Amino acid sequence: MSYRAPVSDIVFTMRHVAGLDRAVADGLYPDLTVDLAQTILDEAGRFANDVIAPLNREGDRHGAVLKDGAITTAPGWKEAYKAWTEAGWNALPGPVDYGGQGLPMLLNSACVEMWNSASMAFGIGPVLTMGAIEALIKHGSDDLKGGYLEKLVSGEWTATMNLTEPQAGSDLAALRSRAEPAGDGTYRISGQKIFITYGEHDLTDNIVHLVLARLPDAPAGTRGISLFLVPKFLPDGTRNDVRCHSIEHKLGIHASPTCTMIFGDHGGAIGWLVGEENRGLNCMFTMMNNARLAVGLQGVAIAERAYQQALAYANERRQGRAAVGAVEGMSPIVMHPDVQRNLLTMKALTAAARAICYMTAEALDRAHLEQDEASRKKAHERASLLTPVAKAFSTDIGVEVASLGVQVHGGMGFVEETGAAQHLRDARIAPIYEGTNGIQAIDLVVRKLPLSGGATVQAQIASMRAIVTRIMKEGTPAFGATGPRLRDAIESLDRSTSHLVKSLSSNAPAEALAGATPYLRLFALAQGGAALAEAALAANRLISEGDNDPAHAARIALCRFFAENIAVGAQGLEDTVMSGSGFLQDASLALAS
Amino acid sequence: MSYRAPVSDIVFTMRHVAGLDRAVADGLYPDLTVDLAQTILDEAGRFANDVIAPLNREGDRHGAVLKDGAITTAPGWKEAYKAWTEAGWNALPGPVDYGGQGLPMLLNSACVEMWNSASMAFGIGPVLTMGAIEALIKHGSDDLKGGYLEKLVSGEWTATMNLTEPQAGSDLAALRSRAEPAGDGTYRISGQKIFITYGEHDLTDNIVHLVLARLPDAPAGTRGISLFLVPKFLPDGTRNDVRCHSIEHKLGIHASPTCTMIFGDHGGAIGWLVGEENRGLNCMFTMMNNARLAVGLQGVAIAERAYQQALAYANERRQGRAAVGAVEGMSPIVMHPDVQRNLLTMKALTAAARAICYMTAEALDRAHLEQDEASRKKAHERASLLTPVAKAFSTDIGVEVASLGVQVHGGMGFVEETGAAQHLRDARIAPIYEGTNGIQAIDLVVRKLPLSGGATVQAQIASMRAIVTRIMKEGTPAFGATGPRLRDAIESLDRSTSHLVKSLSSNAPAEALAGATPYLRLFALAQGGAALAEAALAANRLISEGDNDPAHAARIALCRFFAENIAVGAQGLEDTVMSGSGFLQDASLALAS
Repeated sequence: MSYRAPVSDIVFTMRHVAGLDRAVADGLYPDLTVDLAQTILDEAGRFANDVIAPLNREGDRHGAVLKDGAITTAPGWKEAYKAWTEAGWNALPGPVDYGGQGLPMLLNSACVEMWNSASMAFGIGPVLTMGAIEALIKHGSDDLKGGYLEKLVSGEWTATMNLTEPQAGSDLAALRSRAEPAGDGTYRISGQKIFITYGEHDLTDNIVHLVLARLPDAPAGTRGISLFLVPKFLPDGTRNDVRCHSIEHKLGIHASPTCTMIFGDHGGAIGWLVGEENRGLNCMFTMMNNARLAVGLQGVAIAERAYQQALAYANERRQGRAAVGAVEGMSPIVMHPDVQRNLLTMKALTAAARAICYMTAEALDRAHLEQDEASRKKAHERASLLTPVAKAFSTDIGVEVASLGVQVHGGMGFVEETGAAQHLRDARIAPIYEGTNGIQAIDLVVRKLPLSGGATVQAQIASMRAIVTRIMKEGTPAFGATGPRLRDAIESLDRSTSHLVKSLSSNAPAEALAGATPYLRLFALAQGGAALAEAALAANRLISEGDNDPAHAARIALCRFFAENIAVGAQGLEDTVMSGSGFLQDASLALAS
Repeated sequence: MSYRAPVSDIVFTMRHVAGLDRAVADGLYPDLTVDLAQTILDEAGRFANDVIAPLNREGDRHGAVLKDGAITTAPGWKEAYKAWTEAGWNALPGPVDYGGQGLPMLLNSACVEMWNSASMAFGIGPVLTMGAIEALIKHGSDDLKGGYLEKLVSGEWTATMNLTEPQAGSDLAALRSRAEPAGDGTYRISGQKIFITYGEHDLTDNIVHLVLARLPDAPAGTRGISLFLVPKFLPDGTRNDVRCHSIEHKLGIHASPTCTMIFGDHGGAIGWLVGEENRGLNCMFTMMNNARLAVGLQGVAIAERAYQQALAYANERRQGRAAVGAVEGMSPIVMHPDVQRNLLTMKALTAAARAICYMTAEALDRAHLEQDEASRKKAHERASLLTPVAKAFSTDIGVEVASLGVQVHGGMGFVEETGAAQHLRDARIAPIYEGTNGIQAIDLVVRKLPLSGGATVQAQIASMRAIVTRIMKEGTPAFGATGPRLRDAIESLDRSTSHLVKSLSSNAPAEALAGATPYLRLFALAQGGAALAEAALAANRLISEGDNDPAHAARIALCRFFAENIAVGAQGLEDTVMSGSGFLQDASLALAS
């Protein structure tokens, strides 16, 4: 089963949930119209369907092969990457000054979803290049910008992020890599970095490594980390002192090489400082919102792919006789209520996660593009609040949906040949990298809830309530119990938010930390439900205006399913958050025995 | 990280939750004492730890290799199987008349858990042999019993179950394999069977296939299926007309060959009828409860293994500084609240699933061993009720716990070298085989709730309530909100049960089918919580009697964590069951668009 980019659902979500229409009307995107967005996404969808998706299975089988320090990607990979950059897709969100098309994050997010649905192992590479471009624009010297940005924007070169070391994963304070000033403005970098995605490959002639390291006199901890640009090939064409030592044998995304990189075997790799000394972590944080959103989009992407594959199988595979709507002979399993529940769960979770990710992208756009500073700050805080939810919820449901996809296939799901199992294997990395989902939950509770003294999260909750109020007024029978169920979920979120904010302000961090993960899920259920309700309201309006696209009724049905079958988990999550750190005092007992 | 059989937790669960002490006191197990059980389980644990567990990783890497119709198992596999049978483990539950030790299902279930924790790919083989033994005892002719039982009981030969065909998975009515009477009392079997676990291997000299096929004059559907015994080697030593055509490339349990078997390439494999003509499905159902319980135990087993590995990693890996209980330098990640939540969730789900499986085993024992028929019937119905819950809940949580285990490992969890990923890959088959978990949920609702006019399920709910009443009376602060939370979960179960029973009796099957999966989960949360509460009550009593084993306080803490953090999902599941088939009418819309 191949992938068909769900462009119409994507465009609908962008327009009616993430606010593309409003943003265009506001003049936020001066060069964009809804029609142009549609045209671009149609084209991106075709590329994803026709060029990338067919490589996914072979990429998994072949993987990336390391020999004598060089990595060969899977057959067809290099050609596809070249075609992709030549079609301008890498440059889509890039700055116009360096050859980019300067198109909004919202539009690019839809594209990122499609590249990753087509192949997660393909899609993750450009995410890192995008992050490096952003770091250079914000923090790079003019020389570095001039030397590197154009080729990174076009995709002629790729970039990597070198953060992790064996002893320093989530805790970057423990970094040990060193950087010595050479006296000529350059630095000599040495150290070992692990889990470096596309750290070495044959897709491009050069690779630009962004590397976190410590200067000799740097303070300990995170305030003593600087960021350096270390190219594989130096401007004079000579090879730099950096090499790929080994690659990981991973559960999934086999086609994407995950490298252990050694810097400075022969006296130190030549590097240039990006930003100020000892402010490297600050530079990293700049790009973190975007990269985390991109990984969230990977979760949406793999969920969409798994859903499409499971639905196709369920329409084809016949077993038993359905109790309702029986056909001649055996029924396609899609007619069995239990299979319908699985498929609708997959589709509803995917749609909710997509909506949250696109809303985050729109907020990031507004944080850059709004005219006045107050609006930019408000949008930035909204984006900051939503980013950990977009990353963690989308990647969690990516795994859940891919696992349900295996289940819908029955025994065929466990056989690698069908591809359903690959989606589960691929999906499993996304809750881990770019900050584990546990870290995202802590970020949400500890750093994001206090934004603007709590006003940011309160405004978000108010926006959810406003949608539910509209649903309650609607009175359309097709909405079923959507209104009351979502209202209950939002009230659970509101009470849980107050509880956590209070815990933080009364210096009870363990209470907040203990509740972080269920709180994030609760936030996503309320926000995801509200977003699907907004889509359903728009669909209902279009129906009443005479638009008879059957997808509109489907949007209402999907929203209802989410509210009645998924958002109802909110109460239990609230109970969990409220019972809080009660379990911690005895946890050591239970874990020791 | 290797496996250490959790014998003391296992024995505690058997004694105080599954009722081993009571069963021994009742005289149910005349040849067993608690001390003897402990001795046997200690020995089984050692074998699992020392002989089987070390093979698990290499079994995964090497897999089973098919060449010229013969399969070679992974290095060390054959020797381990031989040592295992020679130590008498295969014969443990087997009938005394045929060389077995006749020990109870409850005891064997604990062993099955341990074999499967050590290696799921190893553990699944004997499950099939056990099923065949049972079918032959109940339905085989004296000749078949005499010719096969002894070697199957000892494990000198293994057995397979040949049900599935490409067009007939969950729906056995669609079977096409044929059996022609040869006129001499034997039959000629022909057809293709897929997904045959250990259909071919090098562990033993002979393999006994039990095969479902149709006689020439058989009625259509499930009432026209007969069961045949088809040995790989005939009694005269010649090779039968059956061969392994291919093996599957699977997501997990690589060391266990999954075969496509071809019967009758050369005129028909020689087979013998087991039971009556056209009553084959009946013979299969005989052994189904046991096999389903065994697969449930695989879920427990892989969860236990994943938990042990994650806990060991979390104690060793240091990152960041914990907010509470900080140590010198970086804290072991086990000290971070979010990691504690993950580990406690893993442990609590595993313990709840274990308790449900062992309770099911004890019910199966009573169904065979009780003196009077009324007691046997009651126990049989209780076992029938609990079996789908044991199978589906345990295997669902097997996947969930293994996935959390990957998460606790962070990036290292995605690297195959650590083994955490293998557990997830292995775990993923158990919700599928031996009846998908969707089928289990339908079985629970449609066939099991109506048992004895609903009295069976009501008695089970009453037994849960009785435990909660005891918890409420206890007043021990360490129980926290255990009582109210479990009470709420049981009341949700009670209301949902009434709703589904009413739907069934008012001829609304779609309503019941639509709610089946969330209902099964709700049942398991209530039953699992009640079981952990029973363990906690026993632990509390022992503490008050002066037993200062720290594991007792841990059992109370674990029960509390389950009640306050997991059982609280019951309300949402009830809401889902109650909203019922509302989603079905619009499902086709949402799935078509």
